[in-house]
Amino acid sequence: MVLLEGPCMVKLGERKIIEMFLEVFGKPSKNILPFGDDVSGFDLGGGRIAVLKVDMFVDKTDMPPGMNYFQAGWKAITMSVSDFAAKAVKPQTVLVGLGLPSKLGKKEIEQIALGLKKASKNYGLKILGGDTNESENLTITSVIFGLTQKKNLILRSGAKPGDLLAVSGKFGKTSAGLKILLEDMDAPSNLKEKLLKPVYMPKAKLDLGLKLKKLGATSTIDSSDGLAWSLHELAKASNVGFIIKKLPIAKEAKIFSKIRGLDPFNLTFYGGEEFEIVGTFNPKKFFKADKTLRKKFLIIGKVVKEKKIVYVKNGFERVVEPKGWEHFV
Amino acid sequence: MVLLEGPCMVKLGERKIIEMFLEVFGKPSKNILPFGDDVSGFDLGGGRIAVLKVDMFVDKTDMPPGMNYFQAGWKAITMSVSDFAAKAVKPQTVLVGLGLPSKLGKKEIEQIALGLKKASKNYGLKILGGDTNESENLTITSVIFGLTQKKNLILRSGAKPGDLLAVSGKFGKTSAGLKILLEDMDAPSNLKEKLLKPVYMPKAKLDLGLKLKKLGATSTIDSSDGLAWSLHELAKASNVGFIIKKLPIAKEAKIFSKIRGLDPFNLTFYGGEEFEIVGTFNPKKFFKADKTLRKKFLIIGKVVKEKKIVYVKNGFERVVEPKGWEHFV
Repeated sequence: MVLLEGPCMVKLGERKIIEMFLEVFGKPSKNILPFGDDVSGFDLGGGRIAVLKVDMFVDKTDMPPGMNYFQAGWKAITMSVSDFAAKAVKPQTVLVGLGLPSKLGKKEIEQIALGLKKASKNYGLKILGGDTNESENLTITSVIFGLTQKKNLILRSGAKPGDLLAVSGKFGKTSAGLKILLEDMDAPSNLKEKLLKPVYMPKAKLDLGLKLKKLGATSTIDSSDGLAWSLHELAKASNVGFIIKKLPIAKEAKIFSKIRGLDPFNLTFYGGEEFEIVGTFNPKKFFKADKTLRKKFLIIGKVVKEKKIVYVKNGFERVVEPKGWEHFV
Repeated sequence: MVLLEGPCMVKLGERKIIEMFLEVFGKPSKNILPFGDDVSGFDLGGGRIAVLKVDMFVDKTDMPPGMNYFQAGWKAITMSVSDFAAKAVKPQTVLVGLGLPSKLGKKEIEQIALGLKKASKNYGLKILGGDTNESENLTITSVIFGLTQKKNLILRSGAKPGDLLAVSGKFGKTSAGLKILLEDMDAPSNLKEKLLKPVYMPKAKLDLGLKLKKLGATSTIDSSDGLAWSLHELAKASNVGFIIKKLPIAKEAKIFSKIRGLDPFNLTFYGGEEFEIVGTFNPKKFFKADKTLRKKFLIIGKVVKEKKIVYVKNGFERVVEPKGWEHFV
């Protein structure tokens, strides 16, 4: 996850860097999931897949002003768990690589450990081991391992025209919260609190993610790089487009957009750091699923053959651009 | 691996930090290997163990002057593979987490990728995936995954009095090389080249490591934190001591120690960044093993009940202190 597009990232871009690596490495022959999907998989034989994910939390890009060290530890785990949730794989164990700046004392390091512990417990993960080193940036690399059956894997590439497009929650609160923290936009204290909560203590939708198969999910992705970006990734991998009829904006984000005169469309689509699941679903299977379960997903549109991603309102189409979260500081 | 003991590490020490984490996390209940062993293990059932290792390469502490980006990529993989070698587990796949400073351009990043590829190919690893982010330090986190049988695991805790103590190679070249690079100690160019080679292009003894069981290994560790430190770790985990009768110093290191007036004992025991295997062996099994194979290990002493680690020469004992590599810059 790259929030900040610093000089290097701006020059090359994360995607460009990954493409460069792919060019050097060549196409992996026995990969279960394509390079660049939310997680990586390794065939254990007998239909079993070992699933691995490495995610780096770097203070400079992932720790907004006001976030404490407990929350940093919590978020580092949540970031990786969210990718497991989106792939319907139960994460089982975690290893942590810590790069610690010399300015940190015992208290701060203990807070990081407590955050890691709390999050691991919350998501049912065992902490297996790790490595520590000194670094100028606080870097928390979480490595999560889980097991699944090959037949249960959901890739980004399975969306078919006619499928439903749905999301596991509403968007915009985190983008609004980050605007408060980074762009000096204030809000009434009650609203502010609600907008900052998901910034400081994000939650991965793990329980829900583990039920994606029951809902007939055909392609999925986690939304942490922003809703628009995630939609474009899904569309590209599945070679389809999306028509969106419902703007999934959170109530508090809508209020904030009115107070601050912001475009709700931008707040919803071009945010980031929102750990929701974005997926496409076979409509027959979806509507056969338990009602309480499927109510946890909000249907926002449908999959179409034409390769465009548009939001349609009152007969007008507005293009959802392939933009991600752009600037952190 | 911590080469540099910066203010934070000096204040707390890597071991202290790990102990703090252990205190916070509590003792893992179903751990196959104890926290702090070279690798971590997870029970897959049916006698199979998933083995995981995370290792962080940070330029500030792991990239000595003159090391190029290709070598950095190579070393980042070698560091983790060496731990698999010491545990006799075949590493199978690798994920890479890259923290890239903004000053790096396409050429440098490509060199890192080429180094990662070359090392992975050399050790038979498949590159599965990864993550990139921006960071002030170049950080290469390698996550390696492998499979083994529970019955084949070699812990640090199995040494028994009467066992042989042996090492997979001679020591001192890397410490000498680092002295040339960091302490302005010069050497004749032919010698210098030989001393710098293992600093820039270290090799993990993987093929040999995978045969440790055949040699009757009872406890093993990789020596990258220095021979003395590794011996103390083994002794502590096994609750034994060592009597060392042969100083395993490399020829070139011995010459360097003479030229520079250094103590060969210090050069051998208190170095670091040497990716050898240090192990204890059941003598019966060891001497029954294939001669060509066992000749690859140098017997340097034996395991004793008394909890001391001493080098004995001409009837005099010299204590091997629990010191690791201390200062990088």
